[in-house]
Parts: sequence; C-alpha cells; structure tokens
Amino acid sequence: MLVHTTHPGNIGAAARAMYTMGIARLTLVSPSHFPHEDALARATGATHVLDLAHVVSTLAQALEGCALAIGLSARPRAFAGRVMPVRAAAREAIVQAANGDVALVFGTEMSGLSNDELAQCGIAATIPANPDYPSLNVAAAVQVAAYELRIAAHGDDVWRAPRFAPATHDEVEALYAHAQRTLADMRFLNPAHPRRLLARLRRLFGRATLEHEEVNILRGILARIDQLLDKRAR
Amino acid sequence: MLVHTTHPGNIGAAARAMYTMGIARLTLVSPSHFPHEDALARATGATHVLDLAHVVSTLAQALEGCALAIGLSARPRAFAGRVMPVRAAAREAIVQAANGDVALVFGTEMSGLSNDELAQCGIAATIPANPDYPSLNVAAAVQVAAYELRIAAHGDDVWRAPRFAPATHDEVEALYAHAQRTLADMRFLNPAHPRRLLARLRRLFGRATLEHEEVNILRGILARIDQLLDKRAR
Repeated sequence: MLVHTTHPGNIGAAARAMYTMGIARLTLVSPSHFPHEDALARATGATHVLDLAHVVSTLAQALEGCALAIGLSARPRAFAGRVMPVRAAAREAIVQAANGDVALVFGTEMSGLSNDELAQCGIAATIPANPDYPSLNVAAAVQVAAYELRIAAHGDDVWRAPRFAPATHDEVEALYAHAQRTLADMRFLNPAHPRRLLARLRRLFGRATLEHEEVNILRGILARIDQLLDKRAR
Repeated sequence: MLVHTTHPGNIGAAARAMYTMGIARLTLVSPSHFPHEDALARATGATHVLDLAHVVSTLAQALEGCALAIGLSARPRAFAGRVMPVRAAAREAIVQAANGDVALVFGTEMSGLSNDELAQCGIAATIPANPDYPSLNVAAAVQVAAYELRIAAHGDDVWRAPRFAPATHDEVEALYAHAQRTLADMRFLNPAHPRRLLARLRRLFGRATLEHEEVNILRGILARIDQLLDKRAR
C-alpha cells in the first residue's frame, strides 16, 4: 500500500520492485497522479500490477479486513506498538499471513507515514540505514521490504551454475598414480620423500573437489609429458 | 561500480541508494551520459557521491588494486567462480574488506554484466527474485546489495522508540494493593477466591512490563472509582 504518493514514476517503480519479488497486489491511497504515463514507463514489465491496483481514498479503507498492517518508518517516534527491523517484520508477516491478508504500508515521498497513519499499523518496520542520510526512495524501500518478504517466505536459495559431473574415487586415484609415475620419470619427486609431494597434491586437488572433465585435462597434461620424455629417451 | 549504465537517472538513484546505506565510493565504467541533470535530480541528498565518482573506460581499470570483486548477476550461467546469494556475498565482502578494497559490480540496464565482465569477478552474487520476472532496476539492485552490506557490517539494530521509565517494584505493588481495595469496594472480587482475580491482573500487567506513567494512569482510574463509590455511599 502506497499512501499519498506524489510522483507517479515512484508508483511504477514500486510496482516493478514488488513484482520482481513475486508480489502483485498494490493498493494506492489517494495518489496525486494515477494512472499516469510515468508510472507505466517505470513499471517496465510489471504494468499489470498497475492495471490491477486498487485506488482508495483513505488508509482506513485500504486496511479494512487485513489481519496485520506493517508500516515502514525511518523514525517511528510517536508509535506505541512494536518497532522492529524490516527483516524481523518480514518474518512476522509470513507467520501472520496464515491468519489473513498482511499489508505493508509506505508513506509519502517527503515525510513518510504520518503519526495517525502509522498508528493504524500493528508493527512499525524500520530499514537499517545511514543515520546521516536514511532517506530511501519510496520504491527503493518497497524493493528492500519485498526482498525481505521473499526471503522470509522462500529462503534465499538462488539459481546456481549447473554442477559438472564430479570425478569418481577411482578416476581420482588413477590420476594420482599417473602423476606419481610421471613425476618420478621427470625426476621431480624427491627420492628421499616420494610421498610428501603426493600428499600435497592430494590436499590441493581434494580441496578443489575434482570434476570428471578436470581429471581428463590433468591426465592429458601428464600423458603429453610422458610423450616428451619418451621422445627424449629415444 | 556501475558498468555501461545507459540512463543517467539510474546513476543518480544508485548514488542515493548507496549513500542511504553509508557507502559513498562510486566508480562509473563508460557511462552513456555523465554528468547529467537526471543523475543529479534522482540523487537528491546524495549528489556529493556523484561529485566524487570516478569515471573510467574499462572494468579492468576500475578493478585495479581491489582485493575482491563481486559481480551482481541474475543468472551467472557461464561463471566459473563461486555463486552465492547476495546476503552471503555481503558477509564475504565484509570479511575480505580486511584485506583491501571490495568492489560490487553492476551491469547495464538491459542485460546486466557480460560473461567477460563477470569473469573478472571472484564471486557472482544473485538477488533472490521472482523467476517469472527477476528484472530489478539497477538502482534497486544497488539498494538491496548496499542494504545487505550495511547489515553484514553493522547488524540490523534500528532506531527504537525511546523507552519510557519503567515502573518500580514498589509502584507496581502499590497499584495491586489499590486495585484489590477498590475491586473489593466495588464488590467485583469473588469473595470466595479474592486472590484469583488479582493473580490474573498480575499476569496481565506483568506481561506488559508497566511503565511509571501507566501506573499513574491506572491508579488515577482507581481513584476516580473510589470517588464515585464514596459519593454513592454518602
């Protein structure tokens, strides 16, 4: 819920910010200008959030039927309810969502939520910020709060690079055996401590958790060294 | 570091986002338009971040001398290094900051960081997002990353409403004694179980941790009841 938003561009940016985190229900409380082309432009791929937005004239109307309202506020001085960081508030929102709709309420660009508006909320949530300049843009505040909601709901597992096939134990042992032969042929192994170098290599490659393809590459290098040693020996 | 940013408004919004989290060092890698009035307008109270920004022509120049570069990427498919959520990356950034400068690198609006640019980073950090629309505005992504950096560095303690003076033990006991007298005068106490109601009240007010001023208010109410009872008795 965006209360008395002045710049329509911020409404569009807020719609985009919400939707990047999977939230699509937007209520506008007496916006200065809406609908507006600046809102559409800044919403980019989330214009349907604007199309479906509810526009009402008071926060009380907007909050009707909600199980919990969380007001974002930089300095909830006069607030009598619970004040918490936005991360904790997001967790609380997910818990309370089992009981009904939970609203996140954002105030106007210049001054945020008024005391009267904040008093209609059960929780005041604060975004930790630079005390010398805690003035987040309203859409940026929406982005942070929506991000915390998403993580509270779904965790922060993200897309990871596809794992390559790990090398099997046998492949890795065959590599070490090959390396020992070749390094001995190269007269690189310390004859007094043949195991020492091998142990260091095991430690290094063990830490890296070798992949199948990497074992092939390393054995290719060893095989090429073997060829060169053969040639020289002839 | 913002790489090949197209819209100067986004540079200004990114500067504001950074500075709300206490970060003021901005490097611009071949921005399309800079300096620009749109950047100044969107930076609002953080225009000094723009004034001090370094402008360079390649990412390699920008990264010279850094201890660690973290590239923000929605889908680091071809990335060979470590991929992690931005929250974990922020913690890593704070740890590595003991060794030197840590850079957060953001790509262009349309397509993010190229594979070549991301390959210059030691870590790819991903912001968890709606898989159907993971397209955060670049300044919004800066806001989330800077927010996570701030929490990683300083925790998420926030400003809390000033605590009012708690009531002393004696004040609270005097309140219960007063309540017991008045409730008895009102013939509200169950004569068979006088302690039961008192125990319930102790439980309620104990949970609320009464403040000095609240004790005064409650005793004021009791005193008013006492007056009314006196009047009726006369």
